[in-house]
Amino acid sequence: MPRSHETYMGLALGLGARGAGLTWPNPSVGCVVVKDDRIIGRGWTQIGGRPHAEVVALAQAGAFARGATVYVTLEPCAHHGKTPPCAEALIAAGVKTVVVAVQDPDPRVDGGGLALLRAAGIDVITNVLAPEALKAHSGFMMRQKLGRPRVSLKLASSFDGRIATGAGESQWITGPQSRRQVHADRAGHDAVMIGGGTARADDPALTVRGWPVARQPVRIVVSRKLDIPLNGKLAKTANQTPLWLCHGSDANPDLSSAWQGLGAKTVACKLAGRQVDMVDALQHLGAAGLTSVYCEGGGALAASLLAADLVDDLMGYIAGLAIGAEGQPALGALGLDRLADAPRFTLVSHRQLGADVLHIWTRETPLI
Amino acid sequence: MPRSHETYMGLALGLGARGAGLTWPNPSVGCVVVKDDRIIGRGWTQIGGRPHAEVVALAQAGAFARGATVYVTLEPCAHHGKTPPCAEALIAAGVKTVVVAVQDPDPRVDGGGLALLRAAGIDVITNVLAPEALKAHSGFMMRQKLGRPRVSLKLASSFDGRIATGAGESQWITGPQSRRQVHADRAGHDAVMIGGGTARADDPALTVRGWPVARQPVRIVVSRKLDIPLNGKLAKTANQTPLWLCHGSDANPDLSSAWQGLGAKTVACKLAGRQVDMVDALQHLGAAGLTSVYCEGGGALAASLLAADLVDDLMGYIAGLAIGAEGQPALGALGLDRLADAPRFTLVSHRQLGADVLHIWTRETPLI
Repeated sequence: MPRSHETYMGLALGLGARGAGLTWPNPSVGCVVVKDDRIIGRGWTQIGGRPHAEVVALAQAGAFARGATVYVTLEPCAHHGKTPPCAEALIAAGVKTVVVAVQDPDPRVDGGGLALLRAAGIDVITNVLAPEALKAHSGFMMRQKLGRPRVSLKLASSFDGRIATGAGESQWITGPQSRRQVHADRAGHDAVMIGGGTARADDPALTVRGWPVARQPVRIVVSRKLDIPLNGKLAKTANQTPLWLCHGSDANPDLSSAWQGLGAKTVACKLAGRQVDMVDALQHLGAAGLTSVYCEGGGALAASLLAADLVDDLMGYIAGLAIGAEGQPALGALGLDRLADAPRFTLVSHRQLGADVLHIWTRETPLI
Repeated sequence: MPRSHETYMGLALGLGARGAGLTWPNPSVGCVVVKDDRIIGRGWTQIGGRPHAEVVALAQAGAFARGATVYVTLEPCAHHGKTPPCAEALIAAGVKTVVVAVQDPDPRVDGGGLALLRAAGIDVITNVLAPEALKAHSGFMMRQKLGRPRVSLKLASSFDGRIATGAGESQWITGPQSRRQVHADRAGHDAVMIGGGTARADDPALTVRGWPVARQPVRIVVSRKLDIPLNGKLAKTANQTPLWLCHGSDANPDLSSAWQGLGAKTVACKLAGRQVDMVDALQHLGAAGLTSVYCEGGGALAASLLAADLVDDLMGYIAGLAIGAEGQPALGALGLDRLADAPRFTLVSHRQLGADVLHIWTRETPLI
């Protein structure tokens, strides 16, 4: 009995996942070419978004692609960008059937890829593992539809939700296995984001360490006044690993120039009260091509994101120690009047990581 | 092949667990009588601690007990209390072998039961599933050795460790499955304990509801000044379900008399700073016979217990909502100077309960 469309699409999704964090501004697509129930080509979007998955898989299949069935997790592109459209490549390869998980909402595609294939006489099957593909491509979809990347918020705290003592001591609360998972989480996102307070307090490198990555995620610091040390780790590495600074429109232009001189990109954002307006900041980040952002706090930035309803995934790392109410909270003030207004999330999973617990939640009503 | 000692002892432990919360001041012991690899008697300590497990199991076995092997989770008692000692009952029944998990630290027993059995020519085997039995009887052991009951602390909070909004709104944060589990937790302890602030804010009944219980746990409120409403649920039910009030030695004697008149027991405790000294309070509770206490907060009482290193088990119920830093913390101030001084716990288990996560931790270095 031949394997099902779902089986092959599941393989294509697994291939696509390999590109997570590496392909922005393009989606991380997976593709499998099948003939006589054998896989003759496999591909996923390459670093920086090119070549596309279909081109890689078709190249592997070569002349055997004629008459084959191609599984692709997102509608093949129809527009001439820096490369010819994938729909044309599929037609040129003479494939018989194209199975697509979800349609590409990009207005330059949006059904156009499927129409091209059908016009060339190719059988097109859609909506195979569509929910899984929507999830896999949700950051890309959110950028298309909402103009902003998907946002994951990490809170790593003591049992009672604290990230440091009253005196500011914070290393280490969670254990090495949790920290290792945090680096894996970073690697799976296009960008890592923190607030200026955390940059000042921790002097972090914000890079992925301990995992091989072909492309480091962009490092983003949200700092209204750009008052981050110009001699810290971030400053010293700004010309090696991308560093973007989201600052208030009222920040000192000299500081902005200084950071640009160090190699950082500065992003002027509107203000919301006394803070950087995170709705505006994320629109800028989406416009710059990012499809997913992993925010690691601190408490004020986490609260800004939650209060503006901008958090899609919540990852809680809990260590087995109690710090008490003088400690610094993982989450700052939300300005809630009523419990009914509290942002709510649905449990996705929970597991032990060394001595800690990791619990993952997602937006109660997904936006995509 | 006959079943192993461990198998039968495991069954005896399971029987003993049925008495959890019901047998204080006595331990909740389980007993199995086995002959020719068949169970001919099963027993566990009955409500209020009497009859003992061995007596129940021997009665079931009747004359068949002659020559049998008896598994008992705690050393049979050797002293004449309100009933003759179990060691004598075992000798009178003519059993051949007695298998014991752990020795009873009670100074009136403490090896005396084993000695009596051996003197009567009975084979005595000890230390079968001893770690499991130590755990099952740890509240009883702690009362014997430390003079205080075992303390479980429950914190039910939002994702960010809050139990109410800044305005005090708190119902409901965790869901119905969590609340049902809390009632089961209550039923498994000798007593349920809260602080005066929680009593004032929530007007709780503090009883076990939704589960059949043969004996309600004692309800304890820790209130330095005894300033709890005299017309609340606790006051109205004080002559139906035990209500004990741990108050400061400086509380108004008229209030103490008023509560006694309502049927409550008042327990005068030393002060530690401006609070009831929880070391002293728990010694009083141990002296009154309690072997396990389930503390449900609030934040100040939870902090007093943690700061005094009196928490043995920590149960965290987390709901998928964020309240923010203005919200009331699940845990009050601990007065920690250094992170190294933070009370630390080891993860026991974690699971989903409806929409919430329950994670359970235990003291890093068990006292028993």
